Amino acid sequence: MTPTIGILGGGQLARMMALAGYPLGFKFVFFDPGKNACAGQVGPLIVADYGNEVALEEFCQQVDCVTLDFENVPVETLRQIAKKKPVFPSPDVLAIAQDRLVEKQFCHSINVPTSDFEPINGLSELKFAARKFDFSAILKTRRMGYDGKGQYLIRSEQDISQIPGDVFNQELILERMVPFEREVSVIVARSASGDMKTWPLCENKHKAGILTTTMVPAKPHELDDKAFEYAVKMAESLQYVGVMVVEFFQTSHQVLVNEFAPRVHNSGHWTIEGAHTSQFENHLRAGLDLPLGDTGMDGMAAMLNWIGAFPDQVHHLTDIGLHWHIYGKKAKPGRKIGHATLTAPDPQQLHDKILQLVNRLGVQL
Amino acid sequence: MTPTIGILGGGQLARMMALAGYPLGFKFVFFDPGKNACAGQVGPLIVADYGNEVALEEFCQQVDCVTLDFENVPVETLRQIAKKKPVFPSPDVLAIAQDRLVEKQFCHSINVPTSDFEPINGLSELKFAARKFDFSAILKTRRMGYDGKGQYLIRSEQDISQIPGDVFNQELILERMVPFEREVSVIVARSASGDMKTWPLCENKHKAGILTTTMVPAKPHELDDKAFEYAVKMAESLQYVGVMVVEFFQTSHQVLVNEFAPRVHNSGHWTIEGAHTSQFENHLRAGLDLPLGDTGMDGMAAMLNWIGAFPDQVHHLTDIGLHWHIYGKKAKPGRKIGHATLTAPDPQQLHDKILQLVNRLGVQL
Repeated sequence: MTPTIGILGGGQLARMMALAGYPLGFKFVFFDPGKNACAGQVGPLIVADYGNEVALEEFCQQVDCVTLDFENVPVETLRQIAKKKPVFPSPDVLAIAQDRLVEKQFCHSINVPTSDFEPINGLSELKFAARKFDFSAILKTRRMGYDGKGQYLIRSEQDISQIPGDVFNQELILERMVPFEREVSVIVARSASGDMKTWPLCENKHKAGILTTTMVPAKPHELDDKAFEYAVKMAESLQYVGVMVVEFFQTSHQVLVNEFAPRVHNSGHWTIEGAHTSQFENHLRAGLDLPLGDTGMDGMAAMLNWIGAFPDQVHHLTDIGLHWHIYGKKAKPGRKIGHATLTAPDPQQLHDKILQLVNRLGVQL
Repeated sequence: MTPTIGILGGGQLARMMALAGYPLGFKFVFFDPGKNACAGQVGPLIVADYGNEVALEEFCQQVDCVTLDFENVPVETLRQIAKKKPVFPSPDVLAIAQDRLVEKQFCHSINVPTSDFEPINGLSELKFAARKFDFSAILKTRRMGYDGKGQYLIRSEQDISQIPGDVFNQELILERMVPFEREVSVIVARSASGDMKTWPLCENKHKAGILTTTMVPAKPHELDDKAFEYAVKMAESLQYVGVMVVEFFQTSHQVLVNEFAPRVHNSGHWTIEGAHTSQFENHLRAGLDLPLGDTGMDGMAAMLNWIGAFPDQVHHLTDIGLHWHIYGKKAKPGRKIGHATLTAPDPQQLHDKILQLVNRLGVQL
């Protein structure tokens, strides 16, 4: 069995999927509108827009099945491909994940809690809902936002008045701020035949809406079981195939779904060195309906994102077991260009290694 | 630092070097006379003979430095390339490794023991030397043999009479058989600035001259220090850059060098999952004079070669932590087409996992 897997989107997720699939003898073809898509450094890349039917036809002819590294691929593109080749996850799942309102409505339909939310059409609806949420809310576009893009904090009437008028040309959603104690994520792999596995719980830190660090396993908490229960319920209800990741806010008394990613996810990068099988390998195994690999881990792992720039000593600190992942992308502010993973047998040793890293690389976490 | 590394030879070693280098942001170009060279599935491949100067010039223009996955690249090719781009290991080292006689003479020049040997020019010299070695010897070509190819066991006058006449058109060497208790190998990484690391000792089993399994760490023996001492001495004397692997025969009272490989080696494949840093990553680090990664391991590892065919359940047994490596090569008898690595915390658990593997895959080890 040596399938060729097509990936829509040629970023670092596609790149790491291919690096996980090559040892299994799989081949890859990437499809991306950008000619510098970094996956193109590790395999063949078709450069075309997602609406280019000729290019999509060529892509389909070269591959045995199709997955994605980017959830904002047009659903219609995925539906067209699905007529010709197996696709995972399904276009229906993608349609849910692409719209924050539909995503939250889906959660509620299966009794999985989220933060409070209101769909917003125009300024007056925003003012009304902001008052309802006690001016402690975030206005988001329903579609296309990621890494904090297209989001506005609403703390006052003044915050509302400062929102550019053209923002209201889009479909919006207002979400009540959640006074969370921490953010965690659950990575789930589910294969077509229903085999399902989760990795240990990930604890995530963000700065300005961008993930900066993930620590695994998260410090045990009595609400952890709820997070796993919700994530598994979502994957089952969606009849999901592949890896999906559910991000949660955890407050003092509950866990609330923030959003889910219908793909491998930044908070699962630690699995490359930290778990017995990586999220990337199991995503491919799930899609090809091969047995899923063991998702256990020995000890602990910490993942650090490099955003905008690398430290001077990139490639160094290998003596303390730092594993570098450099995506081959041009550095620019706010852009994820790589990550590094540290592993250690216990929390104390991980803490010591992180201190060494901070001191020797001169970085802030 | 995002160098492009050229690799002469596009087999599984080149492929695994690239898969180790991509996460570090490196790029690769392979050069191989065969258009189906399996590394071509994971990166750009130039298909041309090693004597094709135009193709070599094109190759040199695309890369920042050059290494090899195959020790029988013509030394002259490497010397020509070395005039244009840094090369590791050096052409002089390659010249030693390509000739079994010169290789053994080198060992003796630095007081590293090998089996007894005699250069052979013609039938009468063979008869004389075979008697000297009590008809317990192996006739080998001085050049180009690997995986037991070009080797003749000499146990009697009759064995000599059955050797095809054209064998004597080549330069030959007769080696006394070593009544070894086991075969072990030492993997050494040495960078240009002299940083040097070794991995735990590997114990290797061969069938018909082809490596079948490696277990690491080898059961401790009082002679182990000698093997490390000799391997390190060889790497120092050669001013070696990159990874080299020294294979030893261990008898009841000594360790003797069998041969050394001026490259990453099959007995080091376990390092991908079994060690903190793989031989492939450290080979690249050494060549680029980056700090070498930690070569320690947690627990134990076993590597199994798939030769000629895969078991029916290829890609399975991931639940017991079996890691598959499928090279994308066409299967044929005697050909290495993949390997798998098992890791476990202790010898008993490794033993249990190997038993499960043997039973469930129906393979013989």
